[in-house]
Amino acid sequence: MTNPIALVTRGDAATQEEWRAALAAAMPEETILPFSVLSAEQRRQADIAIVANPDPADVAALPNLAWVQSLWAGVERLVGELGADAPPIVRLIDPELSRAMAEAVLAWTLYLHRDMPAYAGQQRRRVWQALPYRAPSRTRVGLLGLGALGAAAAACLLRAGFSVAGWSRSEQTLPGIKTATGAAGLSGLLAHSDIVVCLLPLTAETRGLLDGARLAQMKPGASLINFARGPIVVTPDLIAALDSRHLAHAILDVFDVEPLPPDSALWDHPRVTVLPHISAPTDRVSAAGIVAANVRRYRASGRCPEAVDRARGY
Amino acid sequence: MTNPIALVTRGDAATQEEWRAALAAAMPEETILPFSVLSAEQRRQADIAIVANPDPADVAALPNLAWVQSLWAGVERLVGELGADAPPIVRLIDPELSRAMAEAVLAWTLYLHRDMPAYAGQQRRRVWQALPYRAPSRTRVGLLGLGALGAAAAACLLRAGFSVAGWSRSEQTLPGIKTATGAAGLSGLLAHSDIVVCLLPLTAETRGLLDGARLAQMKPGASLINFARGPIVVTPDLIAALDSRHLAHAILDVFDVEPLPPDSALWDHPRVTVLPHISAPTDRVSAAGIVAANVRRYRASGRCPEAVDRARGY
Ligand SMILES: NC(=O)c1ccc[n+]([C@@H]2O[C@H](COP(=O)([O-])OP(=O)(O)OC[C@H]3O[C@@H](n4cnc5c(N)ncnc54)[C@H](OP(=O)(O)O)[C@@H]3O)[C@@H](O)[C@H]2O)c1
Ligand SMILES: NC(=O)c1ccc[n+]([C@@H]2O[C@H](COP(=O)([O-])OP(=O)(O)OC[C@H]3O[C@@H](n4cnc5c(N)ncnc54)[C@H](OP(=O)(O)O)[C@@H]3O)[C@@H](O)[C@H]2O)c1
Repeated sequence: MTNPIALVTRGDAATQEEWRAALAAAMPEETILPFSVLSAEQRRQADIAIVANPDPADVAALPNLAWVQSLWAGVERLVGELGADAPPIVRLIDPELSRAMAEAVLAWTLYLHRDMPAYAGQQRRRVWQALPYRAPSRTRVGLLGLGALGAAAAACLLRAGFSVAGWSRSEQTLPGIKTATGAAGLSGLLAHSDIVVCLLPLTAETRGLLDGARLAQMKPGASLINFARGPIVVTPDLIAALDSRHLAHAILDVFDVEPLPPDSALWDHPRVTVLPHISAPTDRVSAAGIVAANVRRYRASGRCPEAVDRARGY
Repeated sequence: MTNPIALVTRGDAATQEEWRAALAAAMPEETILPFSVLSAEQRRQADIAIVANPDPADVAALPNLAWVQSLWAGVERLVGELGADAPPIVRLIDPELSRAMAEAVLAWTLYLHRDMPAYAGQQRRRVWQALPYRAPSRTRVGLLGLGALGAAAAACLLRAGFSVAGWSRSEQTLPGIKTATGAAGLSGLLAHSDIVVCLLPLTAETRGLLDGARLAQMKPGASLINFARGPIVVTPDLIAALDSRHLAHAILDVFDVEPLPPDSALWDHPRVTVLPHISAPTDRVSAAGIVAANVRRYRASGRCPEAVDRARGY
């Protein structure tokens, strides 16, 4: 018999049970047990932990883990909390998640491109007024991050006819897309994009990246979409850039604190669209299938799936 | 020397001059003169009229027209006003117009699919709440009309992953799309679509087509997008269907009277999005190029471009 897999989550029991059921259905040959029901012996036996926002003490109480599978794509918190000698962390890379994120990027890019916020304002004031339209080929969308999500978003935007540029840490080559790296590459992308979409991981390097100085480099009248992590953008600087009319609009799905506190100034800012972290919802069935494939490859080969680079932070 | 082309528009002079300039640039070999400046002799000589919402008396004052080129895609008014013995009417079929309309259909389909109206309401109430998400493959979009615009919209929706059905007068075959005709075909499409998009021409048959009985056939909780012509939908019946919560939302770009009168109940209906006839803005340069190609083929062959079927009405 193989060792048990520990399911370590924090939060409501119903969500944990939904994950357990989805994972059990995807790999019926495995024994998947919530952390709370593990015996002392099973804690010692568990060689894989599948985690979603776990209490780090729970993970530390599993001494023989070969690797930790995150059910989330963003692992900044896990990397920070588990410490340097924790087992390798494997993040979720799910084509269905990338598809959903690419769809969200396209949907809210079109929301800006087709002036939906302005038309909503006109409707409230009973104003009948066509706004100037320009073809998507004349609208440059700049993507920060060209990983699993950024690359999918780029392909989707290209198919819709937008001009697309992208920025990443290492040099990336993507068909039809102007790519850049480094500080100068970022300045160029910001200066030439009508819409900037953030799909970077939160790391020591990206925290606070989009501050007043960087936002000032953006094209006057441009808009920002942040679907990655709140702390990459310096919120007071963003509000100042919107208030001065340097930026036209911001669409934010992620925040420094989530849920966004009721007293945040973002809620009723006329040029901010607030979303409750829904740009790319996890599909439990699809995610469980990806995790099951990782587990089976590990059982067959004894080799852990590719892990997060802790020094890089993603 | 060829005969002059009469440019017949109604409304502001600046728009007429923009059209004249665009048409002159697209076919510098032609003499294009606004109706108001034509001499009596030139009125007799003119063999083509290019029109946008013309005064029918002006068109009637051009006795030797071989054909009339509309600068609009919808010609219901022209067909009605010009009378039975007017010359053949050629409507605008512009791939750039189809592209823009397909983009609009995708943009506002995604607006519904990604719950943008509901999230805007939540933002106003400072509510942080993820709404259930389902993949586009599980959302059926039903297109009424599979002509130049409907077919382009269908292809665009398919690329975005939606399930697509379509309805037309004659049988149409489009890859990946479930098509139907006739009254029973319409009932089936309405009953199975989550989003119904109207891209029909306004004719004797389509006027008032979407009345209370037809709206009642729609799936409970479905939404309607009308980007074609206002009178195809019976507005009081639509409002009743929204008020009873049978329908979730309507996106209207076209109305019985345009501009939409300031006292219309549609403006502040919580489940109606009002747009000022902007779904597919005409691109003057592109449209002028299409018209120039029609004129050149006519000059070379003596054969008029394909005209509207007056009995059918489109
Ligand atoms: N809002 C939501 O619902 C939601 C859902 C899922 C994920 N997310 C967020 O989206 C983030 C991105 O996900 P992903 O799967 O696309 O990650 P990924 O595959 O690791 O890609 C990250 C991209 O960012 C680039 N990058 C990282 N650090 C950089 C730096 N310092 N300078 C320039 N570029 C840098 C990487 O460059 P290289 O190509 O050179 O490595 C890569 O292109 C996640 O970390 C998560 O926080 C949000
Ligand atoms: N809102 C805007 O900005 C905007 C811009 C441009 C155009 N429009 C409107 O869009 C309309 C459609 O344009 P289009 O270029 O796609 O027209 P089209 O090429 O003539 O196509 C019309 C489609 O409707 C179908 N149809 C017509 N009468 C029907 C009936 N009684 N029952 C079932 N199907 C019927 C036709 O069926 P068959 O295939 O059998 O012929 C065809 O598929 C225009 O007439 C115009 O009013 C709106």
